[in-house]
Amino acid sequence: MLKRLVATTVFLLITSIGVLAEPVYDSIEAFQASPEYAQFIIDNLWILLAAALVFIMHLGFASIESGMTQAKNTVNVIYKNVFILCAGILTYAFIGFQIMYPGDFNGYFGFGGFGIGFDASDPVGFLTPAYGEQMTIWADFIFQAMFAATAATIVSGCVTGRIKLHVFMMFGVLLVAISYPITGSWVWGGGWLDELGFYDFAGSTLVHGVGGVAGLACIILLGARKGKFKDGKVVPILGHNIPLATVGAFLLWFGWFGFNGGSVLSANPMEVSYVFVTTALSAAAGAVSAMLVTKLVINKLDATMALNGILAGLVGITAGADVIAPALAVVVGAIAGGIVVFSVMMLDKLKLDDPVGAVSVHGTCGIWGTLAVGIFVAEFSFLTQLIGTLAVMGFTFIFSLAVFAAFKYTIGVRVSEDYENSGLDIAEHGVSAYPNFAGIDTNGAPSPELAKS
Amino acid sequence: MLKRLVATTVFLLITSIGVLAEPVYDSIEAFQASPEYAQFIIDNLWILLAAALVFIMHLGFASIESGMTQAKNTVNVIYKNVFILCAGILTYAFIGFQIMYPGDFNGYFGFGGFGIGFDASDPVGFLTPAYGEQMTIWADFIFQAMFAATAATIVSGCVTGRIKLHVFMMFGVLLVAISYPITGSWVWGGGWLDELGFYDFAGSTLVHGVGGVAGLACIILLGARKGKFKDGKVVPILGHNIPLATVGAFLLWFGWFGFNGGSVLSANPMEVSYVFVTTALSAAAGAVSAMLVTKLVINKLDATMALNGILAGLVGITAGADVIAPALAVVVGAIAGGIVVFSVMMLDKLKLDDPVGAVSVHGTCGIWGTLAVGIFVAEFSFLTQLIGTLAVMGFTFIFSLAVFAAFKYTIGVRVSEDYENSGLDIAEHGVSAYPNFAGIDTNGAPSPELAKS
Amino acid sequence: MLKRLVATTVFLLITSIGVLAEPVYDSIEAFQASPEYAQFIIDNLWILLAAALVFIMHLGFASIESGMTQAKNTVNVIYKNVFILCAGILTYAFIGFQIMYPGDFNGYFGFGGFGIGFDASDPVGFLTPAYGEQMTIWADFIFQAMFAATAATIVSGCVTGRIKLHVFMMFGVLLVAISYPITGSWVWGGGWLDELGFYDFAGSTLVHGVGGVAGLACIILLGARKGKFKDGKVVPILGHNIPLATVGAFLLWFGWFGFNGGSVLSANPMEVSYVFVTTALSAAAGAVSAMLVTKLVINKLDATMALNGILAGLVGITAGADVIAPALAVVVGAIAGGIVVFSVMMLDKLKLDDPVGAVSVHGTCGIWGTLAVGIFVAEFSFLTQLIGTLAVMGFTFIFSLAVFAAFKYTIGVRVSEDYENSGLDIAEHGVSAYPNFAGIDTNGAPSPELAKS
Repeated sequence: MLKRLVATTVFLLITSIGVLAEPVYDSIEAFQASPEYAQFIIDNLWILLAAALVFIMHLGFASIESGMTQAKNTVNVIYKNVFILCAGILTYAFIGFQIMYPGDFNGYFGFGGFGIGFDASDPVGFLTPAYGEQMTIWADFIFQAMFAATAATIVSGCVTGRIKLHVFMMFGVLLVAISYPITGSWVWGGGWLDELGFYDFAGSTLVHGVGGVAGLACIILLGARKGKFKDGKVVPILGHNIPLATVGAFLLWFGWFGFNGGSVLSANPMEVSYVFVTTALSAAAGAVSAMLVTKLVINKLDATMALNGILAGLVGITAGADVIAPALAVVVGAIAGGIVVFSVMMLDKLKLDDPVGAVSVHGTCGIWGTLAVGIFVAEFSFLTQLIGTLAVMGFTFIFSLAVFAAFKYTIGVRVSEDYENSGLDIAEHGVSAYPNFAGIDTNGAPSPELAKS
Repeated sequence: MLKRLVATTVFLLITSIGVLAEPVYDSIEAFQASPEYAQFIIDNLWILLAAALVFIMHLGFASIESGMTQAKNTVNVIYKNVFILCAGILTYAFIGFQIMYPGDFNGYFGFGGFGIGFDASDPVGFLTPAYGEQMTIWADFIFQAMFAATAATIVSGCVTGRIKLHVFMMFGVLLVAISYPITGSWVWGGGWLDELGFYDFAGSTLVHGVGGVAGLACIILLGARKGKFKDGKVVPILGHNIPLATVGAFLLWFGWFGFNGGSVLSANPMEVSYVFVTTALSAAAGAVSAMLVTKLVINKLDATMALNGILAGLVGITAGADVIAPALAVVVGAIAGGIVVFSVMMLDKLKLDDPVGAVSVHGTCGIWGTLAVGIFVAEFSFLTQLIGTLAVMGFTFIFSLAVFAAFKYTIGVRVSEDYENSGLDIAEHGVSAYPNFAGIDTNGAPSPELAKS
Repeated sequence: MLKRLVATTVFLLITSIGVLAEPVYDSIEAFQASPEYAQFIIDNLWILLAAALVFIMHLGFASIESGMTQAKNTVNVIYKNVFILCAGILTYAFIGFQIMYPGDFNGYFGFGGFGIGFDASDPVGFLTPAYGEQMTIWADFIFQAMFAATAATIVSGCVTGRIKLHVFMMFGVLLVAISYPITGSWVWGGGWLDELGFYDFAGSTLVHGVGGVAGLACIILLGARKGKFKDGKVVPILGHNIPLATVGAFLLWFGWFGFNGGSVLSANPMEVSYVFVTTALSAAAGAVSAMLVTKLVINKLDATMALNGILAGLVGITAGADVIAPALAVVVGAIAGGIVVFSVMMLDKLKLDDPVGAVSVHGTCGIWGTLAVGIFVAEFSFLTQLIGTLAVMGFTFIFSLAVFAAFKYTIGVRVSEDYENSGLDIAEHGVSAYPNFAGIDTNGAPSPELAKS
């Protein structure tokens, strides 16, 4: 009795606003008997696998952010990343998905209703082309949901080591729930930028650019970590665990096959294969180029810059992975690998402290990748690509600046100097990430950190 | 000559007891020419991919168990996990698979014969529906084999830091080879609980509950680690590597898409997509809920509890991932995330030392997940779910208690105090997990540990 | 204008030498409307997924090599691995792919032309069977490209800790670009060994044997690490991070499902399922066997040898994963797991310093696996298998010896004693892999290493 009531209420809540679309088949059985059904199964399976691959990118982000920053803030990094991934998925299910894909709308802002949103008579989207003919709405939702938290996770890298935990949590949720799906609807939801002919295949701008520019807004308001800029000089604050950062970078590349490959939105063999090739070539070129440029410009054989070069190549090709020729994908990646080095140096010069280089990797290379489509592909206009990049990044920057400023001038965004010195792990969480690590196990005695807390 | 002899002998040994079933197609060629064949390829491929995903969960288990326990027992943890995974696969191939899926049997215990078991005239199960119409018997076997070691790996986490290595090895093999497939046959093999209407989609009870309750039995007989309970107080023994534990938790979630998604036993787009969504929503809700509850109840921002919250949500949804509505999956996960916190506190109160919280995550949340099907889904009876949970867990608990007691009162189950103090890595393996880690490399000089051994 | 010019030039460059083959379909549309198309999508998708799985093996290699060697060389290991993976992909795209698959050729050496190579009128290989009927040329290329760097990465493990970075980079590129595709063309490209009836399913010899024997040649010319052999005794130089090595070994196993499973070159359910089963059984048997043999022979419970046992089983089954019976796969893996232990001891006796055991795992077990096909499978001749193994490994050994000797007697191959003592991370890269790790964070002060550089 009770369980029926609960189930029905929830069901009605979710289905209250359905998606209206022309029916294609009369019944699920009719569709399953059609010759198109086998292709549908494959397409749908690929989207699900791509969702799993994008999911593992979040482990990549957590690992590279931890590895490239100080040991004393590692638990904090992990806490932030777990929270924003999970809260992001839930928020996207609650409102984000239907802001990003509102159906028919004015092109600037729409809202399809709470929940994942489906037609009660066609719960999986078999009978209507509402969510594309290649997948169920569940597959579409889970693929998009895995994307959603990415932007906020990028911000996490920028603000690490000195932001108040609950400020990040609130800012991240607002970014994922409101700003990201609004700008997303302009292009992928069929909004004004899509109508204008702006092209961003898998999100050089819509995902990575958004994360990078939001992070930049936060960095400006938050200020640098103590000791990063001293007497007009840049003092490097080294990451504490390069193998962990490496695990992160490789998992990001691995997941990117799903990020870009899944953005084909079907298992079309020509397109998905093509996207795998351009993605891999650009990543490889990005790494080799970043290694070379770092050696030539600052005479260092820098492993972390090589890892950032991989990511630069990946971000760079993301906007045009399905339209840029493989040989040009090498060019796009190689340029991205050079850009990221100069962008990191430029931010240092501007005294903007981005501990993991996320603004450069995702923001600067996101811009480059989006413009590269206008440069290298005849069908697309450079001007339109520029307009789209500016519009999306501009909106995100202003949104982020406004929200983060509101926090700054009310509850404050930065931890105390004491907290920053001792590290956020001890200060906020009362533990260290590596208690009793170096062979000095205490056989059950409480660690000094915990005793203190 | 010799090779033919060997091959023939082994072949005959394996095929001596085949599986009898009605043939569906006259020949493999006839099946391959049928319109059903394309779907068969997809279904089969998905089961194989799911098997690979479940495989990577074992790296997840090894990483989270290492990371959440002390550095001095890390090599031991890894040795145990590698052994039980590999021995588990071999044992399952030898007898487990055909105990779990014995074909027609009395509903309580059956044995189809040694080996993987197939009909020599139809080695891959194309012509008969013996192993389901969606996959070859090889795909079915490898998917199930990857599940098999899971229960024993869960036990590994519970007993870590003080169990004799060879006792764990023997206990683990017996659990995987005998107890796990017997209770498995009751439900998935078509036994008495299946007939009764008990439902456990992917193993909240059959896999996770079994592992948790077997671990509980061992903990009771083994006693707590030295120093964990002192003067009536709980002394936390911190894990030594939180990023490693994080890698573990994320890989478990990643693999769980195969664990639950593959349990559909086909690539049915409606069902697999649905399962991906419920699985992700429950995991996300579990983490957020565990974070919130930990903050409210013990006022801590606890990253390891957040990771356990993810796992709690995953275990919780596993029994009903294909039948619980997405909105209710959030509820199931959120409750699981709360339960795990209280369960950990309760075990501490009972002076039961479970170093990684595996009894709570897999046992307690396994019970919750199985009962949740009876609570939230109209077609299933709460009472039947309760009976099934009690039967499976009761059998496993008694089996584990009996076997472990037999070891305890003969060869002994616990290492000496000296061993426990110095850590099992040095004591049992003669090495440390991180020799010369902190920049004090000795250029080829033997490490002090090895010199001692 | 400019972009059209660039695109056209690059396009013409790449397509200048196309692959000629009989057309099968008149148009892409005709193919897509054919009943074969659904199977084509599945086959192609599986090859792409397999490529992603092989990709993640490179993280496995980087992790196991880092973990099994000293902390002071970790950044260097990572730098080498990132470089060789990325440079390998680019080189393979530029010339390697068309050396390995030159089309019609004399059976010893051929070159199909620069670039990935395709017919401009059929850019994805839909209309011709040129690259197999199961996949697009893009999918074929990316799958093969992920294999290409493997051999050089294996060498990286052998020479770690004392090789000059730029020497490794040059040697690795030459191996991937020239030697590997030449011997590859003899078998997989349809050359003389293929005609002879030599069988190497997924590369026990062609990939792993090649890497192992190339590493052996380098080791001989390079000499042992300082302090490894002292007064006629072997002094173990322990790996610094066993959990990292474990992550590596498990990721290698995970990726091997794609390495072997993808080598079916289609999603054929019978064959791919079979390969998954033999691969897993051999890996499991390899680990258990290596554990047992290590215990019996040197009385140690050695976790790193267990990990090497997994890899030994995987390398061993690779040549015959699709033709060796599952029960015999257990035998092949078990023997491989024993061989690897003795091979490691033998190399030590010969004073050949192979820090991670790569010569034994990939070289010795590669030979074993290739010969095992001739021993256990009636259709194949032991003698032919022996001839093929000797030919491929002989060519690679001589090539490697010649190239490496050329470097040795001109620019020198070995770092200075000072560099080796301080570790290559500080010496070549100016950083440590774990700066300020053990809780001694310096709040932004430069690490002493960096200050020094």
